[in-house]
Amino acid sequence: MDLSDLLTDIVATMASAEDRGQVASYIPELAKVDAAQFGIAIATADGRVRTGGDADSGFSIQSISKVFALTLALGKVGDQLWDRVGREPSGNAFNSIVQLEQEQGIPRNPFINAGAIVVSDVNLGGHQPRVAIGEMLRFVRYLTGEDDIIINEDVATSETATGFRNMALANYMRAFGNVRHPVDLVLGSYFHQCAIEMSCRQLALAGRYLMLDGRHPDGGRVVSPSRARRINALMLTCGHYDASGDFAFRVGIPGKSGVGGGILAIVPGRASIAVWSPGLNASGNSQLGTQALEMLARRTGWSVFSPPEEGD
Amino acid sequence: MDLSDLLTDIVATMASAEDRGQVASYIPELAKVDAAQFGIAIATADGRVRTGGDADSGFSIQSISKVFALTLALGKVGDQLWDRVGREPSGNAFNSIVQLEQEQGIPRNPFINAGAIVVSDVNLGGHQPRVAIGEMLRFVRYLTGEDDIIINEDVATSETATGFRNMALANYMRAFGNVRHPVDLVLGSYFHQCAIEMSCRQLALAGRYLMLDGRHPDGGRVVSPSRARRINALMLTCGHYDASGDFAFRVGIPGKSGVGGGILAIVPGRASIAVWSPGLNASGNSQLGTQALEMLARRTGWSVFSPPEEGD
Amino acid sequence: MDLSDLLTDIVATMASAEDRGQVASYIPELAKVDAAQFGIAIATADGRVRTGGDADSGFSIQSISKVFALTLALGKVGDQLWDRVGREPSGNAFNSIVQLEQEQGIPRNPFINAGAIVVSDVNLGGHQPRVAIGEMLRFVRYLTGEDDIIINEDVATSETATGFRNMALANYMRAFGNVRHPVDLVLGSYFHQCAIEMSCRQLALAGRYLMLDGRHPDGGRVVSPSRARRINALMLTCGHYDASGDFAFRVGIPGKSGVGGGILAIVPGRASIAVWSPGLNASGNSQLGTQALEMLARRTGWSVFSPPEEGD
Amino acid sequence: MDLSDLLTDIVATMASAEDRGQVASYIPELAKVDAAQFGIAIATADGRVRTGGDADSGFSIQSISKVFALTLALGKVGDQLWDRVGREPSGNAFNSIVQLEQEQGIPRNPFINAGAIVVSDVNLGGHQPRVAIGEMLRFVRYLTGEDDIIINEDVATSETATGFRNMALANYMRAFGNVRHPVDLVLGSYFHQCAIEMSCRQLALAGRYLMLDGRHPDGGRVVSPSRARRINALMLTCGHYDASGDFAFRVGIPGKSGVGGGILAIVPGRASIAVWSPGLNASGNSQLGTQALEMLARRTGWSVFSPPEEGD
Repeated sequence: MDLSDLLTDIVATMASAEDRGQVASYIPELAKVDAAQFGIAIATADGRVRTGGDADSGFSIQSISKVFALTLALGKVGDQLWDRVGREPSGNAFNSIVQLEQEQGIPRNPFINAGAIVVSDVNLGGHQPRVAIGEMLRFVRYLTGEDDIIINEDVATSETATGFRNMALANYMRAFGNVRHPVDLVLGSYFHQCAIEMSCRQLALAGRYLMLDGRHPDGGRVVSPSRARRINALMLTCGHYDASGDFAFRVGIPGKSGVGGGILAIVPGRASIAVWSPGLNASGNSQLGTQALEMLARRTGWSVFSPPEEGD
Repeated sequence: MDLSDLLTDIVATMASAEDRGQVASYIPELAKVDAAQFGIAIATADGRVRTGGDADSGFSIQSISKVFALTLALGKVGDQLWDRVGREPSGNAFNSIVQLEQEQGIPRNPFINAGAIVVSDVNLGGHQPRVAIGEMLRFVRYLTGEDDIIINEDVATSETATGFRNMALANYMRAFGNVRHPVDLVLGSYFHQCAIEMSCRQLALAGRYLMLDGRHPDGGRVVSPSRARRINALMLTCGHYDASGDFAFRVGIPGKSGVGGGILAIVPGRASIAVWSPGLNASGNSQLGTQALEMLARRTGWSVFSPPEEGD
Repeated sequence: MDLSDLLTDIVATMASAEDRGQVASYIPELAKVDAAQFGIAIATADGRVRTGGDADSGFSIQSISKVFALTLALGKVGDQLWDRVGREPSGNAFNSIVQLEQEQGIPRNPFINAGAIVVSDVNLGGHQPRVAIGEMLRFVRYLTGEDDIIINEDVATSETATGFRNMALANYMRAFGNVRHPVDLVLGSYFHQCAIEMSCRQLALAGRYLMLDGRHPDGGRVVSPSRARRINALMLTCGHYDASGDFAFRVGIPGKSGVGGGILAIVPGRASIAVWSPGLNASGNSQLGTQALEMLARRTGWSVFSPPEEGD
Repeated sequence: MDLSDLLTDIVATMASAEDRGQVASYIPELAKVDAAQFGIAIATADGRVRTGGDADSGFSIQSISKVFALTLALGKVGDQLWDRVGREPSGNAFNSIVQLEQEQGIPRNPFINAGAIVVSDVNLGGHQPRVAIGEMLRFVRYLTGEDDIIINEDVATSETATGFRNMALANYMRAFGNVRHPVDLVLGSYFHQCAIEMSCRQLALAGRYLMLDGRHPDGGRVVSPSRARRINALMLTCGHYDASGDFAFRVGIPGKSGVGGGILAIVPGRASIAVWSPGLNASGNSQLGTQALEMLARRTGWSVFSPPEEGD
């Protein structure tokens, strides 16, 4: 099978999809995005990048940024992070503030909002938000090799003005001592990180270190092999909110979604994949993005749950 | 690395472990088991089986039977099963009856007790428990090629006499119409299935179809490749109760544990592994069994989250 | 104001009510009852009984029986009962099995099903259900002075055949050791107690000891004054499931409702009141019964929250 | 029985109490208060005020202020308030943020923190906090007839600096649209209201309108009789957090406690009672204050659940 032909098929299939989901409405800036768009990019281990559809259009990566933020935080404090954040799926249609109460302010994992806010608190350190934001931008530019990745200030401002629920989570964890810096600064950093704009092509490039057991394609080590595997494990068990089990069941590879409609998915040793379509399904994950990845996995045989030779 | 040497190392390391966990006490018959035991067996794709420690001692497979019961139920009703059971991690330190109430009698997944009871209800059909139990025994004998696998009637009786919590779950789901046969018959079948006794060697043999993308080593097809991958996915996301995320994080391969102290773990394309040690950790999974698998994964490089070539 | 005139007004108002609620459907026998009925009876401290509407028609008292069962259980084990049952409103739209899990099998109060099942377990003692049921019948006959009060066996049988949720609750508490006798016997006793049939007139007579600070009108002491007040307190805080606060707010007197459509309400020192209409509101309490009591309280000024002289 | 003698007895009994509970530590300023203090004051319907112990020492009324704030809010928006706040006991050992999530940002009642924050939002209107605070101060000065009641600015500042949990609640409800003004302003008003200082004597005076069916002793009407009864009903069902049922059971009269160690209790038509001792029990209510009220109720026979003549 030829990957380029497959991408052509996928783009054609998605173009004719009738139910494209609903664009996220709770962040006003995101609600303006045109739902008709769909993009896909695949960076393979051989160094090639194949794209289809709107693969060069920038979108708000939102929660996908949690993968990069986690990587940075582990670099700063190592496994001590796990004293403050768990590693279990949230597994509950009711969202995380219930569990924060039951579990004393310790979020279930770094990919739900509460956990990502703790990660932001770690990354902020004693600095101003602009320092932490600058570090994050430098990191994604290094991962992609592209210097024009920016933050959409309108989106960041939009989130700040309406992020009452995140303010509630942050204050709640501060009451338990699990957010340690002023809430305004932590959330300022968090909202800017979520507002990073990338294209599918850039996002697929950024995810290559998770495909390559922790190495940058230039040969440098981003994280240890063990840490790369663990980040992949967390993406598989926790990357799609309360639909993570279903994504593992249907697609079978680690992935992290964002409410901007993007999904980053990793086939260890083979591919770093980015898809994007703004409409979301009932679980808050990209409707067409999920379908595209399911189609891709079925056609390529890629799955972490199948014998390796099956997919070659 | 030589696998036989590695097993020798693992057995020696486990023999000197000081904290061996606590043997399950809520089923009186299980509480009698000697905590000093440890066994391991690995069936590899080349047809070999290597063992270490008490690999030929029989033990109560308990919840590991849920993997085989799920396989049978999918054979009977196919994907219609998913109308009655979810595919998400339970993700809650509070156990499942809370979620049954919030989610209208639909258990989160087939590997928590509530979900396995629904699976038993499916497998029972309109028959007597002995019919369903006979079918299950024939299935594990077929998978292993060994005819002496039996049910420990003392364990089954012991569970029946003390299984009030399972009776609560079953009645609760019956109130929602999600258990359709008389509760006594469904639980009779369920308790007998849990009381199957197997050795590590037998259990590793039984799991080979999940290593081989659904094929029996004799060439016959047990399940389709797609179904084998999906069962593996469920084991990874839901196989260790509320410590499933941690097991994926630390060990990185699909596994299903039982309160008898056994764990069945699958490395797709490479190995079907069984470990057993009766003492449990705080999450109810085998303390030494988990450590042994973590040591095995680290030393072999086996992980579904690493590039395939890494582990070869 | 003349009480008889007021009853006439109330009966007329209720006769013209358009929204009469929904008759309980989960117990098949109860679903057959004609929703058009309404009855009311008031026994006052001066020994008079005034009635209106269908005050002599028998109905299934259901959960109102919990008041009499609690009185018996306190007579048997005294305040030790409170080691096994709490005294707090359940206060949760989600019903009690969630709290049983969070609170280790101790039900919140004796007026939710779980609590009443523990009370039945106490009243059963080591006896057969018919002994406990006989005792209960003798007690309500003594309280009313009427020997023809009976149990509707069709209703009891109907509940036994469909009471899976109560079976779940009972088994669940048995797992925690808070139900101590065989679940079948405890529920057998419980379902028969709920199936007692009384008329409004009889029910108002039966409640007089709670109006009279614990005394039977014949001068005998049923319970101490302190205990009578405490039962009234429990009726006020817990007598209407998760609408208890609203009943206290709108009506202002202790009351206990049943899904048969009856409500027993007590004005200490003044009146024991029974109302009945089979249609239930969204909270599971009699729609017209609640309205009738609110109208009665407003017109008489009766309220435990007003100065005593206001109501005279 | 002579009330003055009874107060002497109560003061003596409380002076010799060994277990005085724990002074609230989460508000630094409150943690400094001497736990050895105890005061009591009773304003009776005949216009007399009797006091005992430290009845003239000022203390932080904290949550008792919720009674007065509710009275003001009902004056402003009437029963429309109940669209935004419930009337049911919270009834859950887990505190209110869980229920806010399950019930869409509508707090269970106006006496838990979340509910009182909504009440503060109503009382704030479009004004600055100082306007709302000034109105509240004028109201308690009018109720008591004493002009020297003040706000302890140190306590208000202390709460503002550490009130992360209240900030979480307020932001959370703002996310649901149930807090409508800027969170900082609403909480500024709320924290100042809680920091009002009053003595037992003043607090007993302030509660007289609830004893007198809504009338000020000077003859003016503060609220309608119906509203006074309803506030009393809410105090009985919701006034002691998750120990409200127990307080109703043991003491039998409406009461509202605060973490400063005060309790205001109302015997309709007879008495407005204030007690104060800083040490709290496990439920967060004054340990000696509760005991003193239980002793008072037992010795006087005062209970809303007994025949009126019993207590005279």
